[in-house]
Amino acid sequence: MKVAKQKSQELARLAALVRQMRIGMLTTIEPDGSLRSRPLETVEVDPEGRLWFFTDAHSPKSKRAQAGDHQVALSYADPRDEDFASISGTARVVRDEPKMRGLWTSKLERWFPRGLGDPDLALL
Amino acid sequence: MKVAKQKSQELARLAALVRQMRIGMLTTIEPDGSLRSRPLETVEVDPEGRLWFFTDAHSPKSKRAQAGDHQVALSYADPRDEDFASISGTARVVRDEPKMRGLWTSKLERWFPRGLGDPDLALL
Repeated sequence: MKVAKQKSQELARLAALVRQMRIGMLTTIEPDGSLRSRPLETVEVDPEGRLWFFTDAHSPKSKRAQAGDHQVALSYADPRDEDFASISGTARVVRDEPKMRGLWTSKLERWFPRGLGDPDLALL
Repeated sequence: MKVAKQKSQELARLAALVRQMRIGMLTTIEPDGSLRSRPLETVEVDPEGRLWFFTDAHSPKSKRAQAGDHQVALSYADPRDEDFASISGTARVVRDEPKMRGLWTSKLERWFPRGLGDPDLALL
């Protein structure tokens, strides 16, 4: 996981928590109005404090984020240390191949066994 | 935390995970349409698989759940063991004093220092 130097102390603190917990729960609004949370492995916290994940461009969560920005909540929790972080914001699906190559690690094969060649692979 | 015997194997498995992780992240839809997650200590998984929490009846999350049932997502995460549970459903605020007495433990004073006598205390 890549963590860039952050612009503010708050973002730096958040980035440190995200680095420690790594997997966040992403909550989205489903077409029927219900809320659903899914675990996602964080691959980067960029210098603007944006969080990056790999996703399947045809998964329900990605379809929801493809028609522009969508409201999401992300939470990171470590119940043993009682550390919790919660982020509200918007999500967008991006197919940026150079960025995907820069962020890919073989560890991600457990989620995306077809790797970078997978035509459905995208970034969120 | 109380965990009742569950009606199905799926609920029993969920109850075991919730008992282990204890603190869940509750996501609600805010009045402006954004999503927000907050940590909540689970106090009971009842025989119907309903999850119970203490809440402040005047907190934003409770106000949102007072006008009837509201869509929520709950997630429990233990990133060290890579155990994740996600529950979609509806939430309602209830002021049931006998049930509140039955579920109260002194440990909850760290969240609700005024204890059971707090007129704002309610169950979610």
